[in-house]
Amino acid sequence: MDSPLVAIVMGSRSDLPVMQGAVDTLSAFGVPNEVKILSAHRTPQETAEWVRGLETRGVQVLIAAAGGAAHLAGVAAALTLLPVLGVPLQSPALGGIDSLLSIVQMPAGVPVGTLAIGQPGATNAALLAVAILALSRPDLRKKLADYREEQRKKVLASSP
Amino acid sequence: MDSPLVAIVMGSRSDLPVMQGAVDTLSAFGVPNEVKILSAHRTPQETAEWVRGLETRGVQVLIAAAGGAAHLAGVAAALTLLPVLGVPLQSPALGGIDSLLSIVQMPAGVPVGTLAIGQPGATNAALLAVAILALSRPDLRKKLADYREEQRKKVLASSP
Amino acid sequence: MDSPLVAIVMGSRSDLPVMQGAVDTLSAFGVPNEVKILSAHRTPQETAEWVRGLETRGVQVLIAAAGGAAHLAGVAAALTLLPVLGVPLQSPALGGIDSLLSIVQMPAGVPVGTLAIGQPGATNAALLAVAILALSRPDLRKKLADYREEQRKKVLASSP
Amino acid sequence: MDSPLVAIVMGSRSDLPVMQGAVDTLSAFGVPNEVKILSAHRTPQETAEWVRGLETRGVQVLIAAAGGAAHLAGVAAALTLLPVLGVPLQSPALGGIDSLLSIVQMPAGVPVGTLAIGQPGATNAALLAVAILALSRPDLRKKLADYREEQRKKVLASSP
Amino acid sequence: MDSPLVAIVMGSRSDLPVMQGAVDTLSAFGVPNEVKILSAHRTPQETAEWVRGLETRGVQVLIAAAGGAAHLAGVAAALTLLPVLGVPLQSPALGGIDSLLSIVQMPAGVPVGTLAIGQPGATNAALLAVAILALSRPDLRKKLADYREEQRKKVLASSP
Amino acid sequence: MDSPLVAIVMGSRSDLPVMQGAVDTLSAFGVPNEVKILSAHRTPQETAEWVRGLETRGVQVLIAAAGGAAHLAGVAAALTLLPVLGVPLQSPALGGIDSLLSIVQMPAGVPVGTLAIGQPGATNAALLAVAILALSRPDLRKKLADYREEQRKKVLASSP
Amino acid sequence: MDSPLVAIVMGSRSDLPVMQGAVDTLSAFGVPNEVKILSAHRTPQETAEWVRGLETRGVQVLIAAAGGAAHLAGVAAALTLLPVLGVPLQSPALGGIDSLLSIVQMPAGVPVGTLAIGQPGATNAALLAVAILALSRPDLRKKLADYREEQRKKVLASSP
Amino acid sequence: MDSPLVAIVMGSRSDLPVMQGAVDTLSAFGVPNEVKILSAHRTPQETAEWVRGLETRGVQVLIAAAGGAAHLAGVAAALTLLPVLGVPLQSPALGGIDSLLSIVQMPAGVPVGTLAIGQPGATNAALLAVAILALSRPDLRKKLADYREEQRKKVLASSP
Repeated sequence: MDSPLVAIVMGSRSDLPVMQGAVDTLSAFGVPNEVKILSAHRTPQETAEWVRGLETRGVQVLIAAAGGAAHLAGVAAALTLLPVLGVPLQSPALGGIDSLLSIVQMPAGVPVGTLAIGQPGATNAALLAVAILALSRPDLRKKLADYREEQRKKVLASSP
Repeated sequence: MDSPLVAIVMGSRSDLPVMQGAVDTLSAFGVPNEVKILSAHRTPQETAEWVRGLETRGVQVLIAAAGGAAHLAGVAAALTLLPVLGVPLQSPALGGIDSLLSIVQMPAGVPVGTLAIGQPGATNAALLAVAILALSRPDLRKKLADYREEQRKKVLASSP
Repeated sequence: MDSPLVAIVMGSRSDLPVMQGAVDTLSAFGVPNEVKILSAHRTPQETAEWVRGLETRGVQVLIAAAGGAAHLAGVAAALTLLPVLGVPLQSPALGGIDSLLSIVQMPAGVPVGTLAIGQPGATNAALLAVAILALSRPDLRKKLADYREEQRKKVLASSP
Repeated sequence: MDSPLVAIVMGSRSDLPVMQGAVDTLSAFGVPNEVKILSAHRTPQETAEWVRGLETRGVQVLIAAAGGAAHLAGVAAALTLLPVLGVPLQSPALGGIDSLLSIVQMPAGVPVGTLAIGQPGATNAALLAVAILALSRPDLRKKLADYREEQRKKVLASSP
Repeated sequence: MDSPLVAIVMGSRSDLPVMQGAVDTLSAFGVPNEVKILSAHRTPQETAEWVRGLETRGVQVLIAAAGGAAHLAGVAAALTLLPVLGVPLQSPALGGIDSLLSIVQMPAGVPVGTLAIGQPGATNAALLAVAILALSRPDLRKKLADYREEQRKKVLASSP
Repeated sequence: MDSPLVAIVMGSRSDLPVMQGAVDTLSAFGVPNEVKILSAHRTPQETAEWVRGLETRGVQVLIAAAGGAAHLAGVAAALTLLPVLGVPLQSPALGGIDSLLSIVQMPAGVPVGTLAIGQPGATNAALLAVAILALSRPDLRKKLADYREEQRKKVLASSP
Repeated sequence: MDSPLVAIVMGSRSDLPVMQGAVDTLSAFGVPNEVKILSAHRTPQETAEWVRGLETRGVQVLIAAAGGAAHLAGVAAALTLLPVLGVPLQSPALGGIDSLLSIVQMPAGVPVGTLAIGQPGATNAALLAVAILALSRPDLRKKLADYREEQRKKVLASSP
Repeated sequence: MDSPLVAIVMGSRSDLPVMQGAVDTLSAFGVPNEVKILSAHRTPQETAEWVRGLETRGVQVLIAAAGGAAHLAGVAAALTLLPVLGVPLQSPALGGIDSLLSIVQMPAGVPVGTLAIGQPGATNAALLAVAILALSRPDLRKKLADYREEQRKKVLASSP
């Protein structure tokens, strides 16, 4: 099996159903990916080691998803030079505005490219990762164009 | 002069002082860039043409900044397969929460990697663009590592 | 069949149950209308063409509904001189405050007359469209007066 | 002097500097207009009488601006069949989110087409009024097209 | 039957289940009350007449409940010198923050004493009305003291 | 000098400039009042004693103003059967939304009639207190009617 | 049975299911604790007495949970020199942002260490209490380290 | 000089003016303290090492202050068993609600005791640290009682 180009990390196994959208999208594009459960707060050491090892293993984009005081994406971004994309997960009390602000409001110096809260964000993180990879992979660019075309057709077919 | 690798578009000339942070950061990394004032609402046609032409001209990352009902990044993302990064600008009435939500809450299918509101977001959009370019440019990766190292030293030197 | 005076566009077929309130209200007033599914992000070209063609086909008011980073109404308003009314749809994470701000906070120059989030907004967009048409159609003005009278009676009859 | 086609009402004289943007825009389009200070709370009777008299005097669109618990637009909309446009004004404590929600979240039955908070909303209310009037006045449609063209040129001329 | 001392008005029959809490509380205190469905927007004339007639009929406190762009309490307060208490109702999209701000943020000159969103607000509006009446009715003051005492006992009895 | 009918309490001397609006309004109505600085958190004992003594001293309405985690009004309401009115003060970080929610969202059983954030709330708390006192004082009712009439005239005189 | 080192107070029996998380966590650490239902608003006297008695009885940390206008933690903090930890409970209308701001935004002088809204906050209040006790109890420090280790292992075991 | 009992860490030298309130308060209580500038994002390695070393050096409480996507407190809490207190700093765009949610909404397992946004939070973090230390230091308990008494007197002396 191919070594992963995109790594997806999330703070808890319970985040997987939402983040499966990212996994499935990457797989549909034939992008080898890896899914990892690691917590910025419960496994700081392992998170740091895993993030630091990504580049050597050939990973090119990191997607990090978390909810509430969502530090995972920012913590990871501090430890790698790879582009890091963040997916804020819905939180039971505040709908995910806490997750969003915790991820997007990074100080100058360490960026996290943040996507929408929840399901659309999971899919879009994968698509943005594909767009990044496509810069040097014409085959992925072609698949992305096809995906857009398919989306286009689906919308056009849906008028009542 | 080199053809631009990163294009920066904003809705109004008055956004330039904030977005100059992105320009300066890119220039500091030696990344050729282009700055354009175009409005999703006031120049929709020219915006569409300009965005559609980016890829052919060799641009690899698009940074779009806007405030209020900030549609520029999403509109651009709909018209290109390039990675699009969005910078929400502070708005006079609501501080920029309107700009942020208008940019980040994109529906599944068309991603915008969103950065922080205002100045830190401008700098970070440039840094994320550099990180993306660095995937195929070891020299940029090296400069990014140096930039991080410099940041590190500055923080360490600042304890009272 | 009469050519439509009001066009209703929404980003996804799943928005139709809410927007049916606008369709039904227009139909109750005998205002010929047209419903279209088009996405500012997934079908930008077709959206532009469709919006640009509205005036020639005799449409007088455009109603656009979207959720999240809701760009459809603003994008349409940039492409037509017709009055554009926006309906922010409820969003799963943030209840629709994202949709509302994305539609209402338009910059000076390109207005969108925004209605309430969700169901009441759908009905009211239709009623505002009728009020606009009624400026030159005394029959519609009469029907609007009757509608108000009916509402009045319903409220008065409902005290326990 | 021509009888007014658009009436602008606001709750306090202190709102005039912001709403002057609406007056100036209407005047630039040659649309006769009338400015009135009336409060839904301090002059309910006079407000009701003035609103009820608008239609007879030939007014075609009503623009109402208010801040905080901004009831003026909704109260007016309840008393006339004319299209009512609302401008939420910035409030000292909450930036105008209170004004916005008080105006836009109208119940089904009585619509207020709401514009952006503050200055952009004032200009846009005038432009939307012009767009409504332009449906039966080709000269206004022409002026609106010219205005858009001017805006377009200004944006295009502003790239650095 | 005694003439009502407290009048409760709400914009729609569907608000009654929540406002029944106010009715029941007043009845438990033996305070004659009247419940009325009237809408600031759908029955402005009847609302004005009904509010203007309250004082003559001996009503001493008015409780007004509404949701969304909740104008009923403010509109009523503009038309009577009686103390007006407002109950913001939960709204489907925004949880009632719109209702709250629309009621509480009244401009200087016309006060509405605002209670909590929804059920607790309904009960508390009744209790505040009783406290106001109790200023000249020692029997009500006594009942209020008893009510507090009962509450106290209930809490004290509930520790596990 | 007359014994006070309305007591105004606030958490800090720095709140006085805003609350002076309440004092001045009461004085303009000839309502004897008392101003006290007491903190729910820094002087809990003295606050409790002072609140418990109000009724015996003939005070009929209590106005409590505080900012941030604004507990003063609720704490006072728990200790007296008098009607308690709350004024949320603007807070430096969050504009006063914290103060507002801390005062208005009281649980069922202990009501606080809450006014607008800051200056308008201060004036309106005094006016609501006057409206309450006016229920048994025809002279105050007359003055309140005069005040409204004056307000009315001021608004009517202010149209440009 | 051992005298309690941590006391947990909440405003209503209905808060117990959420706060049971704090009880269970303390019990798992072998920390004797006491649960009390007391309301800042319904039982102010008993609350004050109970809080004032805590220190004498050997309690070292107080955990207070409340929702809405959540005054319990702040009121308690005003009456004891013990460290007070606050748990904001979810509220039906606003999700708990009201509870959070009412607890965390305390004025300088009387601190409440505030935890997350709802369930995670309940668990974390207990853990922070344990961390405080552990400063002088090596056995608790050891258990805390074990707890962290267990958490670590659980996360590590959960990757798919 | 005594070895520090409380350590204060913040992400940037520019945070010092606000956090000086914590330093001054600790010094006024005679609590030896240490101030450190370290960033969770710019100096992750040094932050981790410094936090891990605190306990051995005899530090008993850690205060961490940050703004925006404020990860410092949570990151530190993950690396030490000491009680961690968080101070959310005001942010230019959103007033500090982003900082607050990023700090307080920690997942179950790793608590941060969060104080108010900005200046009051800085002072209160120090006071809560003192309260924690006072559990085993009667001299500090006495000073805390004196501080409260002084506060009490200042409030009592400030009534006009």
